[in-house]
Amino acid sequence: MTSQTRSPRADGFSMPAEWAPHSRTWMVWPERPDNWRLGGKPAQTAFTAVAKAIADFEPVTVCVSAGQYENARARLDHPAIRVVEISTDDAWVRDTGPTFVTDGQGGLRGIDWAFNAWGGFDGGLYAPWQRDDQVASKILEIEGCSRYRTEGFVLEGGSIHVDGEGTLITTEECLLNRNRNPHLDRQQIEAVLHEHLAVDKVIWLPEGLFNDETDGHVDNFCCFVRPGEVLLAWTDDQQNPNYPRCQAALRVLENVEDACGRRLTVHKMPIPGPLYATAEECAGVDLVSGSQERNPSSRLAGSYVNFLIVNGGIIAPKFDDPMDLVAESLLKRLFPQHQVVMVPGREILLGGGNIHCITQQQPAP
Amino acid sequence: MTSQTRSPRADGFSMPAEWAPHSRTWMVWPERPDNWRLGGKPAQTAFTAVAKAIADFEPVTVCVSAGQYENARARLDHPAIRVVEISTDDAWVRDTGPTFVTDGQGGLRGIDWAFNAWGGFDGGLYAPWQRDDQVASKILEIEGCSRYRTEGFVLEGGSIHVDGEGTLITTEECLLNRNRNPHLDRQQIEAVLHEHLAVDKVIWLPEGLFNDETDGHVDNFCCFVRPGEVLLAWTDDQQNPNYPRCQAALRVLENVEDACGRRLTVHKMPIPGPLYATAEECAGVDLVSGSQERNPSSRLAGSYVNFLIVNGGIIAPKFDDPMDLVAESLLKRLFPQHQVVMVPGREILLGGGNIHCITQQQPAP
Repeated sequence: MTSQTRSPRADGFSMPAEWAPHSRTWMVWPERPDNWRLGGKPAQTAFTAVAKAIADFEPVTVCVSAGQYENARARLDHPAIRVVEISTDDAWVRDTGPTFVTDGQGGLRGIDWAFNAWGGFDGGLYAPWQRDDQVASKILEIEGCSRYRTEGFVLEGGSIHVDGEGTLITTEECLLNRNRNPHLDRQQIEAVLHEHLAVDKVIWLPEGLFNDETDGHVDNFCCFVRPGEVLLAWTDDQQNPNYPRCQAALRVLENVEDACGRRLTVHKMPIPGPLYATAEECAGVDLVSGSQERNPSSRLAGSYVNFLIVNGGIIAPKFDDPMDLVAESLLKRLFPQHQVVMVPGREILLGGGNIHCITQQQPAP
Repeated sequence: MTSQTRSPRADGFSMPAEWAPHSRTWMVWPERPDNWRLGGKPAQTAFTAVAKAIADFEPVTVCVSAGQYENARARLDHPAIRVVEISTDDAWVRDTGPTFVTDGQGGLRGIDWAFNAWGGFDGGLYAPWQRDDQVASKILEIEGCSRYRTEGFVLEGGSIHVDGEGTLITTEECLLNRNRNPHLDRQQIEAVLHEHLAVDKVIWLPEGLFNDETDGHVDNFCCFVRPGEVLLAWTDDQQNPNYPRCQAALRVLENVEDACGRRLTVHKMPIPGPLYATAEECAGVDLVSGSQERNPSSRLAGSYVNFLIVNGGIIAPKFDDPMDLVAESLLKRLFPQHQVVMVPGREILLGGGNIHCITQQQPAP
């Protein structure tokens, strides 16, 4: 594999928006028993449903450990699903996989951000994380893509969204967290994003969703639906711990211009729940010191914003919640050219994320 | 991945000769400490030299376990070498990888023969062998190739050679061994070969090289150099335990017609040595019950016939033996259009094979 020494921007590469055409979507098979209950079996069922839903629109490649390979291959029985062996520490390929960049001339490369399990030994979710940190380079090797490695710069793909026209949205809670890149200030972090993703404007929301164990990843809270329009998780209930977070985000979004000088249209997506893990669900998770605790009294950071845009489709989570229909209807309205497919997301949420977190699109070059 | 239910021949596919153009060559990184001395480190050096020698002619993909991934990636520093994670039981991709077949119209598929570690519990070389048996399908998934699985038929790629014009050469010692396919007789085995490789004529040599732990794989003894011409390992020394084997093979080769009705020209390649492992070399191998013993008194089955044909090159082993120059000179004469590269093969031989055994060509579709 070739490692690039300049920056994507210097080489004419940029990160396309998620709605740009994909070659495929990547996933990782869940199995970690101190994160996924009952040996990961309910999560594997949920991930399988997501993989098959995506595979009806575009090819999917699922990375699986040697030990789970045969089982995963048997369960992922869809002609558009490829299964490759890649060992990982957990199953969040949005955060461990490469961020692909294209040059509009058939070129496809990948950014291999340093990964520290969402905070390393200062609030991170598990240790070690070395295999997760290798996922991006292993994916790029399989695809024969050249790689940009940001050795001194920690970033997870779920902490950013781009509109493909020069604007990036993120949260201060995550990117300015002392457990990511404490040696860099806001301007220096912006400079890295500018150089690697070829964006010109970074929109900083103060925080992400309440109790999001990633330190407020934007992909669970706010996303672009097209240039100039964002979808923000929302509550009007002042008792909801998300209320001040939503208000603060809205204030930013209503008072900012994007890279093209546009004011943003903000669509509001209701937050489901409140959702909690049951005692039985928590009891099915291995107890391992240093790994994320599961507790029935912790409000889950469920969000319909955590969906994936694929070729011709929207793959979004549902929670067996009264808001499911509202969310589906809003997504249909926002994406009239896409087919909206709602897939059960509770088991993924129990592990700490949702559909966007467990997928990584590979844009068509 | 698509699994095919008919046969390659029925679908218009056949196995090209090794000299047909390749897309790449596959290898597996050695590490098994009960087969490779000193934790596999000398073998890793030898495999690296082979990989780089091939990579000067065509792309190489090396399959590596998770544990060795970082080390292998660092050592295989050549722009034409790709490293992918695939866990294995050992490093003989000739025998565990797919046999690729093409249809002459851009189609590329793979045969995934059942694998039992060269004899299963009746003389096989180790157990378990499940990960080795998965190698072919994992390679085919990465390449997006459709697969033919021969669930009830055991075969290793090193036990056959084809001329690409309908003729296959093999040994009775291996293919008729009771530890491979005891439920099938010679005619039934020929029928499987006819259907899967699209050959019409099977030439049966009685045995392979003396002390070849694969039960006489033909690729360590005799190969095609072009249609109508074979290269046979040879000794004129009646004390050499290979003498009767060479004589018996020659009798067959001199009295057979190939699928096109041609008589064969037989070139004779001197056998090096006698070669033996030293006591020190044997002492570096882990002692594990059920795995192949290493013994300084066992004559090694060294052979110059165990080379690989790549795009424009011949990658052949040398043994620091007086015959090295004779072998190189003969290969240059037999392959005047190829560049002959001799690579140290002793460490590979100590593990039980040589360059052809540790490589698998992927023909250009």
